[in-house]
This record gives sequence, structure tokens and C-alpha cells, in this order.
Amino acid sequence: MDSILTPIGFVRCEAEKVPRHWTVSHLTGILEIEEKYTVGIRDIHKDQKIVVIFHFHRSEGFDEDCLIQTPPAHGEERGVFSTCSPRRPNPIGFSVLTVLGVEGSKIHVKGLDMMDGTPILDIKPHMEAS
Amino acid sequence: MDSILTPIGFVRCEAEKVPRHWTVSHLTGILEIEEKYTVGIRDIHKDQKIVVIFHFHRSEGFDEDCLIQTPPAHGEERGVFSTCSPRRPNPIGFSVLTVLGVEGSKIHVKGLDMMDGTPILDIKPHMEAS
Repeated sequence: MDSILTPIGFVRCEAEKVPRHWTVSHLTGILEIEEKYTVGIRDIHKDQKIVVIFHFHRSEGFDEDCLIQTPPAHGEERGVFSTCSPRRPNPIGFSVLTVLGVEGSKIHVKGLDMMDGTPILDIKPHMEAS
Repeated sequence: MDSILTPIGFVRCEAEKVPRHWTVSHLTGILEIEEKYTVGIRDIHKDQKIVVIFHFHRSEGFDEDCLIQTPPAHGEERGVFSTCSPRRPNPIGFSVLTVLGVEGSKIHVKGLDMMDGTPILDIKPHMEAS
């Protein structure tokens, strides 16, 4: 029942320190998508919000001690599935980014909370919960 | 650079026909989480919205012909990364569900667009894009 996922591209970002979460980030950078998928991003446009699903490739892994964690933002203990910690059973991240523009297979974005080299697994249109 | 993901639980849902998308779904069901992760869901509570990341385990796969698809909802061709189609390079889905209650390792939810048996990969708190 395992799923094997292969990156569709990688994050490019020059910042050394990356904000903890997209809700508080103004950081800009580029989603460099594999050229074979360029046609698949043709309808992504400036000022749109997109959902980006990525691999926390630098996560230190998950063990039983990570079931409860204390997010630095508010300092209260939480069950891992109520946090955005990279140390989770499946190290998948999810961010909502604003598109600044698209050039070929490069999507310029704002709101990054991923570090340079982060493997991108998927991009989806962003829709508000009703 | 591949990521190997293992389900943290499975969707249980009695409906035979599942709505196409969580934004239009009122379907209820259960997220049955592995018992070893029960502590990790302890802060999930009634009326909260959660992000659920799952495996489109019944997806028919992806090939070059799937780079452009026509979502049935509006009948216009779109690049795959501007659709929610299950036929995408990495068959990962993402839904925002409303919690109806939590009983042990079972999360009762509303807004399901996953079929019975869908492998759940992650749960995160839902946050609005600003």
C-alpha cells in the first residue's frame, strides 16, 4: 500500500533563512518544473494562488516522541496532526503560494516557506473552503 | 530523490458514488487512523476544518496525454496542474474536510470526496490564505 512519489521539479530560492510558514512569508523564489511537464503548467497565471505539495527532504525523521510536539509559534504542545512540523509520519508539506509570473517551465512565486532544493511533488489550483 | 509514503489510515465511507470535489460535497464518513498514531490526533476537534492528503489509489496512471485534461465541471481544457484530476504525475489528492467528532482513532468528517478504502497520507490544520 506504499506510494512512491517522484519530484515534478524543485524549489529555487536564494534566502538562507526561510520563514516557518507560508501564512507569514513574503519570500520570493522559483518553482523549476521538469521540462516534460511544461504544458501541464500552461494555465497557471500571475496573481493566482496555487497549492504546492512538497517533500520535507531535510526532515530528521519521525519516531514515537514526535507524536506530541510544541510548535515555536505559540509554545503549546499539540498532537503532530495539529501542527505543520516537518517531523511527521509522511514528511509531506503543503503551502499556498501566490504566482508572480510564469516563464517556460519556471513559476515565480511569493510566500515561500521551502528551502532551496526542496522537491516539489504536485501543484493544484487553490480553492477556498466554504 | 523518490519519496516512499505509507498510509497513516484509511477512509471509511458507505456511499457508492462520491462527489467529485470537497467544495461541493456534504458526504460524511470516517478517517480510520492507525492506532499507533491516536495520540497525534488528540487536538483535532469538532467543527474544525482539516487538510487531508491522500493517495488516489484507483487512479489509472499518468502519461503524456494527461498533460492537458478537460475537467467535467466546466468543460474547458486545462493543464493538469490547474485541475484536481486523479491522473497526475504523483497521484496525491488534497481535501479540506469538516470534523464532526473524534472517537479514539476515528475522525468523523463531512465533505468527503474520497472513496471507501482511500489511503490517508497526512492530516494538517487548515489555515486560510491571507
